[in-house]
Amino acid sequence: MSLQAERITILGSGLVGSLLAIYLAKRGYQVDIYERRPDMRKNRVAAGRSINLALSERGWTALEQVGIRKQIEDVAIPMYARMVHNTDGSLSGQPYGKDGQAIYSVSRGGLNCTLMDCAERFPNISIHFNQRIEDVNLKEKQFAVIKEDGQVDRINYEILFGADGAFSALRAALQRTDRFEYSQSYIEHGYKELTIPAGDSGSFLMEKNALHIWPRKNFMLIALPNQDGSFTCTLFFQFDGEESFSRIKTKAEAHDFLNRYFPDAVAMMPHCLDDFFHNPTSSLVTVRCYPWSYEDSACLIGDSAHAIVPFFGQGMNCGFEDCRILDQLMTEHANWHELFGAFQLSRKPNADAIATLALNNFIEMRDLVADPHFLKKKKIESRIAQLYPDQFISAYGMVSFTNIPYADALRRGREQNNLLEELSAIPNLDDDILSAMSKKILK
Amino acid sequence: MSLQAERITILGSGLVGSLLAIYLAKRGYQVDIYERRPDMRKNRVAAGRSINLALSERGWTALEQVGIRKQIEDVAIPMYARMVHNTDGSLSGQPYGKDGQAIYSVSRGGLNCTLMDCAERFPNISIHFNQRIEDVNLKEKQFAVIKEDGQVDRINYEILFGADGAFSALRAALQRTDRFEYSQSYIEHGYKELTIPAGDSGSFLMEKNALHIWPRKNFMLIALPNQDGSFTCTLFFQFDGEESFSRIKTKAEAHDFLNRYFPDAVAMMPHCLDDFFHNPTSSLVTVRCYPWSYEDSACLIGDSAHAIVPFFGQGMNCGFEDCRILDQLMTEHANWHELFGAFQLSRKPNADAIATLALNNFIEMRDLVADPHFLKKKKIESRIAQLYPDQFISAYGMVSFTNIPYADALRRGREQNNLLEELSAIPNLDDDILSAMSKKILK
Repeated sequence: MSLQAERITILGSGLVGSLLAIYLAKRGYQVDIYERRPDMRKNRVAAGRSINLALSERGWTALEQVGIRKQIEDVAIPMYARMVHNTDGSLSGQPYGKDGQAIYSVSRGGLNCTLMDCAERFPNISIHFNQRIEDVNLKEKQFAVIKEDGQVDRINYEILFGADGAFSALRAALQRTDRFEYSQSYIEHGYKELTIPAGDSGSFLMEKNALHIWPRKNFMLIALPNQDGSFTCTLFFQFDGEESFSRIKTKAEAHDFLNRYFPDAVAMMPHCLDDFFHNPTSSLVTVRCYPWSYEDSACLIGDSAHAIVPFFGQGMNCGFEDCRILDQLMTEHANWHELFGAFQLSRKPNADAIATLALNNFIEMRDLVADPHFLKKKKIESRIAQLYPDQFISAYGMVSFTNIPYADALRRGREQNNLLEELSAIPNLDDDILSAMSKKILK
Repeated sequence: MSLQAERITILGSGLVGSLLAIYLAKRGYQVDIYERRPDMRKNRVAAGRSINLALSERGWTALEQVGIRKQIEDVAIPMYARMVHNTDGSLSGQPYGKDGQAIYSVSRGGLNCTLMDCAERFPNISIHFNQRIEDVNLKEKQFAVIKEDGQVDRINYEILFGADGAFSALRAALQRTDRFEYSQSYIEHGYKELTIPAGDSGSFLMEKNALHIWPRKNFMLIALPNQDGSFTCTLFFQFDGEESFSRIKTKAEAHDFLNRYFPDAVAMMPHCLDDFFHNPTSSLVTVRCYPWSYEDSACLIGDSAHAIVPFFGQGMNCGFEDCRILDQLMTEHANWHELFGAFQLSRKPNADAIATLALNNFIEMRDLVADPHFLKKKKIESRIAQLYPDQFISAYGMVSFTNIPYADALRRGREQNNLLEELSAIPNLDDDILSAMSKKILK
């Protein structure tokens, strides 16, 4: 290998850290992962707060590249459509793509355990648990590890990857270097997990192969299926204001709120009031920064470089794509400084694009049924897709079912949206006009 | 006093920390200031790197309020005009305001020493030097102080103000709290200090009562007078690119560059090549964050809450205004939590506005002579000011010669600029048209 290194150190054995380790181990490097938490495989958290993720094309591509697609497919549930739960109790299905196209519900914990298992099968990967990283010294190439007993070790590194998430210790060190661009920005909504338990003998109480959404304009509830027949639900709701988490202080208030907006869901959630007050309310941050790397020795990857809100289901997929692109660039560069430079230059515009797409998609998800203009545009878009199945891909499709760079998906999505705005203003739109005008956005 | 506190702790004895201490001491509080550096009055830094500031109306108002205007006036040099040094060597003066209106050149070090002297005259103010603050624990109301010998003390506080600048320790603690909005953003330009020494027996080699500018489109040199007859010069120049700091590596290259663009200045700077390589290249950051306070116990003030670029000469003036407004709000609020809430709500829009105005003013300063359209608008603006001396104030005037809130100055400045754009497009503009159209922006 042309990129010289005895050992590579990774902060974080989360989804991206574990997959990155596999990529690097396959290239023959000795990899050490330092993880703050205990080994989740030995201390399995009791059910209840198992966040669900939607794995889509970019994620699969990155997993396939290192030959572990099959292991994950076994635990993933395909969701072929959004199932919209309207206020009047009616349901309407909206397929995500063409026949057979789906995004896949996976449990974060389960997927992480599988990835760590895959990683530890490599003799050249070691995961060190219960290692809290406190203070990365970029110049000395050293960090402090606080052990469970409070003892502090100093660890030297040669090459360091920060896969340590939205509150990265490596990024905190970069933030203190001169001319480091950084922003963290929270949305007005927080989220709270609720659960629809399985029915008799592990049956699903709603359609299994769908992502369920209760769009309510300013807030929404979603539900993703788990393998045991339950659904993990997430309420996205404003922290403050007229209708908000801060206004719901009693079980009676929570009962009124949930029953007013989600009566069909509540009927399936016997413990929702307890869950509502027992589960935390979490915040949602977008992190943007640059550069992602320090000289020839340290580089951010995944959420530590670009934490995004979850509304496009792309946080993990983007992090996995980071690993695949980094690996690809490793074949093209002879030293780490150049590699890191090429990596951040290639990924930064795409990370910025998916951050924007994710923020925008929240509005789309909340408004799915409420806005007639939006539905009219969606109808026209479907017609274009029918007429030109090989030449037209919606923005959602580009993000979820292709590996087209996010920045291109954002740009083409905007062009498409401009066209849809124009088309929706035409009184008697027929296929001839539609075809003529669609030419400019077809591939 | 209604706001209860035994002691108040301030981080930083810089300009804002010292003035804030005086405001609080006058209200009877016991004030302790912790300062990272040694006492600059005892360890006076040798001349050469004495950054100069432009004190304007907001600064004076805040100083007057605590009765120390006179002390500062004694060491301030009025600058009544911009003196533009054109590329052909010609000079053109542009008055800042009406007759007698000036901004005032003061040395940061000198002003800081005077403010500390004023502060220490109060028996209830103590300044503790050589105290590096490392770790503010907001919940425990405690911070760590690293002494010169490396010893660590833990100090408890009751009320804490962070006047500790752009890299504030208090803000670092706030950044780790949930839902804290934060951004740091650098411009592409850095700056380097150069010096025009005094002439024979302390004479000034250029017009004393002016701020000298060499606008060169993408970069610029400025010079402010010192009391000893010298001028402190600052070169604002891109870090990277065709013409940039990174391209000037040898004395020959520096010589060529400086002589090509600033020949008249170079003629007065015998040591400019040595200075160029000896003095550091510093970066310029804008920091935006929110909230500025934590519960009823801690609050940011000055640069720690809103570091801005120096191109409007308002960083210190804005920080001094913070002190005045805080003091005013102290008479209206019965507890610290309410006070901090009112303070940040009142100041945040104004801090954001001056951050924007400062970034915009860099372009204006660099382009002063180069852009005929800009000069045409300036001429029309002057005519409006002549016709309506009591009803029209330029954006520059509102910022520098009034205490009109920055947010209002920004908004009115934009309205004025829109009008100036309209007016400059009119072929035969006479006073009648001018007057008729100006009505909408007059007070």
